[in-house]
Amino acid sequence: MSSPILSRRDLDFLLYEWLDVAALTARPRFSEHSKDTFDAVIDLGADIATKRFRPHNKKSDTNEPMMRPDGTVELIPEIKDALDAFGEAGLVAATFDEALGGLQLPTAVARASLLWFQAANAGTSAYPVLTIANANLLAEHASASQIDTYLRPMLEGRFFGTMCLSEPHAGSSLTDVTTKARPAGDGTYRVTGTKMWITGGDHELTENIVHLVLAKVPGGGPGVHGLSLFIVPKYLPDGTRNDVTLVSLNHKMGNRGATNALLNFGDGTYPVSDEAGAIGYLVGDEHRGLTYMFHMMNEVRIDVGLVATAVGYTGFLQALEYAKVRTQGRKTGEKNPSSHPVPLIEHTDVKRMLLAQKSYVEGALALGLYCSLLVDEQQTADTHEQRTRATLLLDVLTPISKSWPAQWCLEANSLAIQVHGGYGYTRDYDVEQLYRDNRLNAIHEGTHGIQGLDLLGRKVVMQEGAGLQLLVDTIGQTIARVDESRAAADTAGYAKELGAAVERLTAVTSTLWSANDVAVTLANSSIYLEAAGHVVLAWIWLEQLLATDGKDGDFYNGKRAAAQYFYHYELPKTAPQFDLLSSLDRTTVDVRPDWF
Amino acid sequence: MSSPILSRRDLDFLLYEWLDVAALTARPRFSEHSKDTFDAVIDLGADIATKRFRPHNKKSDTNEPMMRPDGTVELIPEIKDALDAFGEAGLVAATFDEALGGLQLPTAVARASLLWFQAANAGTSAYPVLTIANANLLAEHASASQIDTYLRPMLEGRFFGTMCLSEPHAGSSLTDVTTKARPAGDGTYRVTGTKMWITGGDHELTENIVHLVLAKVPGGGPGVHGLSLFIVPKYLPDGTRNDVTLVSLNHKMGNRGATNALLNFGDGTYPVSDEAGAIGYLVGDEHRGLTYMFHMMNEVRIDVGLVATAVGYTGFLQALEYAKVRTQGRKTGEKNPSSHPVPLIEHTDVKRMLLAQKSYVEGALALGLYCSLLVDEQQTADTHEQRTRATLLLDVLTPISKSWPAQWCLEANSLAIQVHGGYGYTRDYDVEQLYRDNRLNAIHEGTHGIQGLDLLGRKVVMQEGAGLQLLVDTIGQTIARVDESRAAADTAGYAKELGAAVERLTAVTSTLWSANDVAVTLANSSIYLEAAGHVVLAWIWLEQLLATDGKDGDFYNGKRAAAQYFYHYELPKTAPQFDLLSSLDRTTVDVRPDWF
Repeated sequence: MSSPILSRRDLDFLLYEWLDVAALTARPRFSEHSKDTFDAVIDLGADIATKRFRPHNKKSDTNEPMMRPDGTVELIPEIKDALDAFGEAGLVAATFDEALGGLQLPTAVARASLLWFQAANAGTSAYPVLTIANANLLAEHASASQIDTYLRPMLEGRFFGTMCLSEPHAGSSLTDVTTKARPAGDGTYRVTGTKMWITGGDHELTENIVHLVLAKVPGGGPGVHGLSLFIVPKYLPDGTRNDVTLVSLNHKMGNRGATNALLNFGDGTYPVSDEAGAIGYLVGDEHRGLTYMFHMMNEVRIDVGLVATAVGYTGFLQALEYAKVRTQGRKTGEKNPSSHPVPLIEHTDVKRMLLAQKSYVEGALALGLYCSLLVDEQQTADTHEQRTRATLLLDVLTPISKSWPAQWCLEANSLAIQVHGGYGYTRDYDVEQLYRDNRLNAIHEGTHGIQGLDLLGRKVVMQEGAGLQLLVDTIGQTIARVDESRAAADTAGYAKELGAAVERLTAVTSTLWSANDVAVTLANSSIYLEAAGHVVLAWIWLEQLLATDGKDGDFYNGKRAAAQYFYHYELPKTAPQFDLLSSLDRTTVDVRPDWF
Repeated sequence: MSSPILSRRDLDFLLYEWLDVAALTARPRFSEHSKDTFDAVIDLGADIATKRFRPHNKKSDTNEPMMRPDGTVELIPEIKDALDAFGEAGLVAATFDEALGGLQLPTAVARASLLWFQAANAGTSAYPVLTIANANLLAEHASASQIDTYLRPMLEGRFFGTMCLSEPHAGSSLTDVTTKARPAGDGTYRVTGTKMWITGGDHELTENIVHLVLAKVPGGGPGVHGLSLFIVPKYLPDGTRNDVTLVSLNHKMGNRGATNALLNFGDGTYPVSDEAGAIGYLVGDEHRGLTYMFHMMNEVRIDVGLVATAVGYTGFLQALEYAKVRTQGRKTGEKNPSSHPVPLIEHTDVKRMLLAQKSYVEGALALGLYCSLLVDEQQTADTHEQRTRATLLLDVLTPISKSWPAQWCLEANSLAIQVHGGYGYTRDYDVEQLYRDNRLNAIHEGTHGIQGLDLLGRKVVMQEGAGLQLLVDTIGQTIARVDESRAAADTAGYAKELGAAVERLTAVTSTLWSANDVAVTLANSSIYLEAAGHVVLAWIWLEQLLATDGKDGDFYNGKRAAAQYFYHYELPKTAPQFDLLSSLDRTTVDVRPDWF
């Protein structure tokens, strides 16, 4: 395809015209940087992604990872070449301290660079994305020697990292983790158990793999509070193989380039000592594993939203390109069958499908960059209050930033297929793979339903509702910026509609929590998540619209048209959702398994 | 999987408790039949589908059709075995006249039997589905000798049929068909051109393939009115190869078991006479080809809705089975982490996903069987008025019966994946393939957008709106059957909501056609299609609900719960759609290609 992977113009708009990321250079942490260095790292990402990641995207789909008889993993060589280029460019360490060899870039800028890789090749980009999240956890919680032994090589691109939570019998239910870690008496632990769905779980891409493993130590009590976190490297510091064994690879519908593994820890395949178990190194304190892991999990959830966005965005650009060059049929009202066929993009229904995609992927991208900037805010804002505020807002937005792109950028991919017609359903084009790749994102790192429970059951009620209130206030500040005397009639109307939707969200939240039965409160938490998501995206679109104020030209007209689409076609979908929620509907509570 | 392919209990409910298909045996055409023979053909379908079609569904996905160097098609042998069993059972001829060797069964019963094959294996079932539709066209429009030469062998399962409309440069735009047919002077024609997306376009499954080809004869004038229809067999009656050449096979995301071909007609690969071109035999009169083809196309559109339904239904049953046996987590409010995990189906959000699937697939099945019964009505109802009424109602319902299942039974497949969690995304389970298979159905035989244009641009305005009025009256009769004094409060409420939705549909249709710009009228025809579809399905659910009246037990409670789900969660989605439509929204009309 001749279409670009992403729109650099849109990134510039969002980062500089809307979020004013250049202002971050005034902060001490980023004082060595300038808009030029920000641009350079985004350009570098675009360049490497275009040249090294995109070309093998289809090939790695067709030639998925296979397990060799000797237990090693066979990957197409292009994957290692691409990842070596990524590592050599120093991009794993983009946001890390200079003291660790990092570039000390803002997260918003680093993610804007990373997005190109995710758009070019979701599978291959999964390795560094997980490695970065793993490294962030270690930077926060690991000991000095763990940082030297494991974090530094990850930042150099020599090691990759994983997160090992799920087990075959317990996908989403961490309460039921049975992997055990026994103290060996020398400060290390012996880890035994089986972990499932481990992305990047095994490969020969790097010198070592740093598994972060949730396991139970004796005396930890039942449930998630008994979990501790361990570094379990594939190779021990002396170079001997640790007892971590690849059992099998999962063969998936999409996202095939990334290995996804079932791993045994301590099954004796590679015995390391008289005592059974893989050698593990405790991170931080015992029984605090889940708290640490949430640090990584929350980051990865935002990453999932971003990869869903990137895959949706690149599909949109391909559909747009196709709609401009492919001719078919005539415009409504053209009666002369001998007239020339017109490009697809002249058909209103095709424009509808393109506008829908545009509103989804550009909205999701804006939200993802906004959340990334909140990471910078929580780390570098001037005051403690600002940092706390950023953390709280990010907490509330995280389930939405994960689930909304997973749902709607998948829909964008479906519409990209539809714009291509029958060709889009064939493997001659890329859009069918993008659709398959993106379907993963509503499942992993907390399913759609779990994000709903997180938002309604935890995030909007924590700190006595302070998180929701902060979101409402933040949206209110945007609405207040719409000067009715100056704004276009449309914009003023959107601000009113958004205000009304926010009021409904607040009211519905109260109503749901006024039910005396938590089963009823949470029964429709997925619907709540979706309604809240659309409200947040309407806010993000109003923000973008305000950033176009007084600006002319096709690009800004496009933004305004997409905002109009979102307000005319999408936000109204929340009305019946709020109606359902405020009725405390019991349909799904009352239906009995035997009735199916 | 241990789950059944379809629910025989649901079919019995729909056919006998709701539609009273047994009453058809009172009609002369079906007088040789009884409920027992109806049951027998459904059981036969279920048996052959389970034993011969289902076992190779995954294998034919993994081993898709390939073109050999000699130009023939390589298929896994199980496909031919299965199709031979189908043909030997006489099922191609299920609805045809006894005089043609048919079983003279009602279409509703034949389709209920065929559904098992479509649920078991969408790819392999595509061959007979197209053959039956082709045969129906020939039975209506072909000459006596064409019937003997081509139709009878198809009914015997010895020949298969195709429909050849699209061309590489013109997928949906039949105006731009360039395939030509020149009279050869001996009553035959010479056909030259290229046809694309031909399902069953080439294979060695049968002795011959009967292509029905749209082409232009000289003097036919431009546009679709110049099209004529030809039988172009792969092999001529004397056994020599006709000049029909397989150029390539399309390699698709799903639905891989069915060959989908690019065919050349008359490119000289198999020259048949001094004059270039494949030999074609005119069906009916010149220049009436599209009218004849619509006979087949309308039937195939309902078939597409049925295969979408079948694939959605079988995925639902697999998700249901999985939700019953897989344990995970605890119910809301259970605080003891040492308690046993519960089956997935105990979780409210999983019940929501199962109820959604149930409301989609059982609703779609009911609509499909209703439309099938309309075919029987148009052919065998007692009075001319009843037959005309059935034809008109079927005309209006056809775009919905095609597009609604394609959209919502795909959503059911997505939810079936979601219920399976990560496992559902792997190829160890079937649901990911069902999702890929089903994505085709919004594309072929008229895209989703084209169905919208057909409904709003043609069907609801033809005969001065008589079709829409008939639909409204028919729904009104159902509402009138709800006796408010007797009915449960829920049912009476649903009847009122349905009545209000029908009023909005009528009003919106008037408003749209009151616009003085047809581009504005049709701008949101896809949204109109979706809103009208939900109204029709709400009606179908009220019909089913009335058929449960006074009946107790899990099955009927399940029907009532699914109806409740549809009225609480689905029908309200139409309100913002109607709002958008009645505003004569211009967003998609006004957005300019350059703004993207």
